[in-house]
Amino acid sequence: MDIATLGGLIVGAALVVIAILLGGSGLGPFFDAPSILIVVGGSLSAVLMRFPIKDFFTAMGAGFGRAFKDQTDDPLAVIENARELADIARKSGLIALESVEVANPLMAKGIQYCVDGMDADFIRTMMHKDISASIQKNQVGERVFRGMGDAAPAFGMIGTLVGLVQMLLNLSDPSAIGPAMAVALLTTLYGALLGNLVFLPMADKLNHRANKENQIRSLILDAVLGINAGTSPRVLEETLLVGLDPKKKEEGAEPEAAPA
Amino acid sequence: MDIATLGGLIVGAALVVIAILLGGSGLGPFFDAPSILIVVGGSLSAVLMRFPIKDFFTAMGAGFGRAFKDQTDDPLAVIENARELADIARKSGLIALESVEVANPLMAKGIQYCVDGMDADFIRTMMHKDISASIQKNQVGERVFRGMGDAAPAFGMIGTLVGLVQMLLNLSDPSAIGPAMAVALLTTLYGALLGNLVFLPMADKLNHRANKENQIRSLILDAVLGINAGTSPRVLEETLLVGLDPKKKEEGAEPEAAPA
Amino acid sequence: MDIATLGGLIVGAALVVIAILLGGSGLGPFFDAPSILIVVGGSLSAVLMRFPIKDFFTAMGAGFGRAFKDQTDDPLAVIENARELADIARKSGLIALESVEVANPLMAKGIQYCVDGMDADFIRTMMHKDISASIQKNQVGERVFRGMGDAAPAFGMIGTLVGLVQMLLNLSDPSAIGPAMAVALLTTLYGALLGNLVFLPMADKLNHRANKENQIRSLILDAVLGINAGTSPRVLEETLLVGLDPKKKEEGAEPEAAPA
Amino acid sequence: MDIATLGGLIVGAALVVIAILLGGSGLGPFFDAPSILIVVGGSLSAVLMRFPIKDFFTAMGAGFGRAFKDQTDDPLAVIENARELADIARKSGLIALESVEVANPLMAKGIQYCVDGMDADFIRTMMHKDISASIQKNQVGERVFRGMGDAAPAFGMIGTLVGLVQMLLNLSDPSAIGPAMAVALLTTLYGALLGNLVFLPMADKLNHRANKENQIRSLILDAVLGINAGTSPRVLEETLLVGLDPKKKEEGAEPEAAPA
Amino acid sequence: MDIATLGGLIVGAALVVIAILLGGSGLGPFFDAPSILIVVGGSLSAVLMRFPIKDFFTAMGAGFGRAFKDQTDDPLAVIENARELADIARKSGLIALESVEVANPLMAKGIQYCVDGMDADFIRTMMHKDISASIQKNQVGERVFRGMGDAAPAFGMIGTLVGLVQMLLNLSDPSAIGPAMAVALLTTLYGALLGNLVFLPMADKLNHRANKENQIRSLILDAVLGINAGTSPRVLEETLLVGLDPKKKEEGAEPEAAPA
Repeated sequence: MDIATLGGLIVGAALVVIAILLGGSGLGPFFDAPSILIVVGGSLSAVLMRFPIKDFFTAMGAGFGRAFKDQTDDPLAVIENARELADIARKSGLIALESVEVANPLMAKGIQYCVDGMDADFIRTMMHKDISASIQKNQVGERVFRGMGDAAPAFGMIGTLVGLVQMLLNLSDPSAIGPAMAVALLTTLYGALLGNLVFLPMADKLNHRANKENQIRSLILDAVLGINAGTSPRVLEETLLVGLDPKKKEEGAEPEAAPA
Repeated sequence: MDIATLGGLIVGAALVVIAILLGGSGLGPFFDAPSILIVVGGSLSAVLMRFPIKDFFTAMGAGFGRAFKDQTDDPLAVIENARELADIARKSGLIALESVEVANPLMAKGIQYCVDGMDADFIRTMMHKDISASIQKNQVGERVFRGMGDAAPAFGMIGTLVGLVQMLLNLSDPSAIGPAMAVALLTTLYGALLGNLVFLPMADKLNHRANKENQIRSLILDAVLGINAGTSPRVLEETLLVGLDPKKKEEGAEPEAAPA
Repeated sequence: MDIATLGGLIVGAALVVIAILLGGSGLGPFFDAPSILIVVGGSLSAVLMRFPIKDFFTAMGAGFGRAFKDQTDDPLAVIENARELADIARKSGLIALESVEVANPLMAKGIQYCVDGMDADFIRTMMHKDISASIQKNQVGERVFRGMGDAAPAFGMIGTLVGLVQMLLNLSDPSAIGPAMAVALLTTLYGALLGNLVFLPMADKLNHRANKENQIRSLILDAVLGINAGTSPRVLEETLLVGLDPKKKEEGAEPEAAPA
Repeated sequence: MDIATLGGLIVGAALVVIAILLGGSGLGPFFDAPSILIVVGGSLSAVLMRFPIKDFFTAMGAGFGRAFKDQTDDPLAVIENARELADIARKSGLIALESVEVANPLMAKGIQYCVDGMDADFIRTMMHKDISASIQKNQVGERVFRGMGDAAPAFGMIGTLVGLVQMLLNLSDPSAIGPAMAVALLTTLYGALLGNLVFLPMADKLNHRANKENQIRSLILDAVLGINAGTSPRVLEETLLVGLDPKKKEEGAEPEAAPA
Repeated sequence: MDIATLGGLIVGAALVVIAILLGGSGLGPFFDAPSILIVVGGSLSAVLMRFPIKDFFTAMGAGFGRAFKDQTDDPLAVIENARELADIARKSGLIALESVEVANPLMAKGIQYCVDGMDADFIRTMMHKDISASIQKNQVGERVFRGMGDAAPAFGMIGTLVGLVQMLLNLSDPSAIGPAMAVALLTTLYGALLGNLVFLPMADKLNHRANKENQIRSLILDAVLGINAGTSPRVLEETLLVGLDPKKKEEGAEPEAAPA
């Protein structure tokens, strides 16, 4: 569970609600069904036009899931795992890795290539293709949310323009002007809230998570190539640890604390 | 037929119409011929200035066609096709490919090079040139629509400014101010709708489709180079499948389900 | 003559005029000399600050010329020309090219290098330098117009602010407020029209034309290198045709239709 | 202590306060707790959604620290240090470096590799990994502040929209309109001030500092590789000095003035 | 003296003054000290936060100097100078260059390397470092002005918001509303003028000048490498001339006209 995504969303929404209540009007006047319809529906339909329908639903499901759940592997666990595999490979040969269960699917595929006796170039090419396919899949989710983050304020403005035109056509009753204009402004407010508090931060979170995952993937690639080349477990571990955050590395020094 | 493009357009337009009707005025006041003229005509003429006239008409025709129709080849069908060709080449030599009918024109051209006995470097260079010519052609369509998506809101603002100036010159009749300003705002509304609901999503869809096509093209290039090198059909299929989405790959495991 | 540039400009301007006339006021109130002065003059002076004075005048002259006239060589004519030269070189040696008149200056320079017996690396380096000097020169024109397209709306806003301040200082006569504000808005209108209907489309057209020219230039480079290497005329023609649009290539199949 | 960051912040804030006081109203009406709540809280919660919670707190702490304190090593001190180390290595061999204390951790790690007898490729790879891990860590801080700089004006607009809607719903008391709208505009003012005077300049300062640090790090990499290759101290110093600012270099000529 | 920078600035400012005078109010109401204070001071303090204090002052001084003075070397003079040096080197050996005075410091340093008998790789590496240090230094000046060009309109808006809030709090005297709002708008006007007429054009001019200087520097690098390789003066001159503008080249054909 990624507390930050959910927490940020709840805190942000609560702040807006509190600001409204402190302003003295209730929440009631800030809820307007047609305005919600035009902003949410318009953003969805603009994004629907941008992407194939299949990608759209996949991205919506996976995107929400990935933004709220943190399933990234711990780099230290990956390195620990690689050290064990390197140890087995050094002691009993690459063939002995066949019977070892490897949890991470990319690592498992790479180890399978080693067992099959493929050379380093082939392994690198195949795993690179696999990695870039994952990257492209992740980018679809990010782009769907970024597209909605761009469309929401635009449809907010469209809704406000519709409301303004209707208000201007009907200026005979001065007491109706204020409420009509208030309702017209609501779509702009919805668009700004959805874009800045929901869609764009989620696109950024997905981007951030994808970067983390790519680091793990290139760590796995380095690990598999090292195991295939018969690197000693100690040297392999040290080489893989170099690219990590100083803090994480200290934890790595006490491997009993690292089975995250 | 790409349901998403058409569906998104219809749903988006319907939402705006519903929002207008819920606002209590009819649709009538939201239709103003001079406003439509200035936004649509202005966007077209600005784009006309940006591109040679021939490219403009080609892009308009092809762009609309490509955005609403999904003609991208299925990667699994391409891989299946490549496996069959590799099988023939292994059994009867590259020359035997001469009599095989290949549906995809790029694949057909590549196979022709193999039949003619060209070497891998020549094939790669020639197919790369062909691929980059296709990419450039596709980009023209995308850029025409993106140009219109940028111009539409600008001409919407120009129309509103024209209307505002005329309204301000004629403030003597207070009851006319509201309707005059309503009409002035319509061009901004048209510009925002055309840009955000039609032109920009279509440019993004064309970009998305072009990316898909480029993936297919580089798959075909890999396939032709593999066939030319005499790779075994099984290895070729496996190599080509690596870069695909996990889901598609599972389908690929049951090739009887893949003749999309 | 590039009909699209001129046509787009005329149609766009006509549409704005028609929209004004349909609005019921004449064209008169939309003409205000000080407003034109501040927008056009301000854009020019801001661009003058950005570029050396010599580049500015060159860019203005060449830019207008290039945007309205289409002087790009026809790629098919270039390829046809290259085939003839390759034919002569094959039959009578590279020296025989000395007496051939070559219309295109870049091609002529490349052929001269061949005649002088320079090697392929030298020819590639020298022609690359020549090509990148042309690219830089073309970019100056595009950047001058893009700079004016950015400055025009800014000076439009500056003019409107000046007008608004003067109107606000003089609110004693209510009947003067409307016309004063109308005049103030005119500079914003001028800035938006100049930017979106003139300067930015011209910058895009120059960019588009420069891309076309660069394609021709790299075609010529390939042609000269091929001639220098003694490629057979038929193979050279086929290699050069690969990168072209499918449509053009069909025309190329009937070379009697290609003397553009 | 980086005087510029703090000084710029204080001077900028003072200027705004002075402008308010010169305007004749006191500072009181410019302080509104709910407005501050929505802008600061909204910016924080939007950024919280974008980044993992751990990175967020690290970035906030480190970011503020780094923006106000200048801890970048002096390049001349680094070069002086490298010359001494090269001198020892030349006279007593790389092993003799083991007993030397090296203050900079990256330099110390590189020297350790030299002592361990690693070859240049290994040292370059390992130090590159270390450097790119530091770069990524620095970028998180910059991106957090840039994210807040983008979110602050957006939440300022959201707060103003909330206030405008509440004002429009309650137009019955004309004397309340002015103050209500004044309060509504305060959130826009807070958002613009926080974004332009605090968050975005801090993001730029962090970026600027990171660039400086990367220059130092690549200087250290060059120095370690030079020491490992047994370059003479004089040549090493000269080579490292070449990339520096002319001014700094002159100071470097009198090394007694450089113990920064 | 670069007439364009100063001329553009004067003409632009004069146009604004003329437009104000044509508007019928004098210049007086357009001068407001607190507004100038908040826009100029705010822009300076935001930029002060972005850059180290030393870089800021250097950039301000050097930037203004470089924007108004044209000190770029004439490429033809550089080529002429290179030809003379190549001539000496061919006739009397590279050592003979020791006694030649070379005006351009980069050329002088490169010639010194030749005299010292360094090889081409060393010369290229060292001169590249020198060139990229100059590029970085130039970029600081450009970025300071671009930062001010971004900050000026933002502080203009901040000042206007302060003025609007004060006006709205004090609506009791209707006759004061107009002038108060006029003053409030002045900061937006100042911000737009400073940004679009001063800071951004100066940043662009510095960028343009830096590009020119980099061309000269890479010309000098080519010249030094050519001299070091013992290229014949005629070939060297021809090679260096290729990358120049056609016009300049014609001047170069009559070297008696080129002693710029």
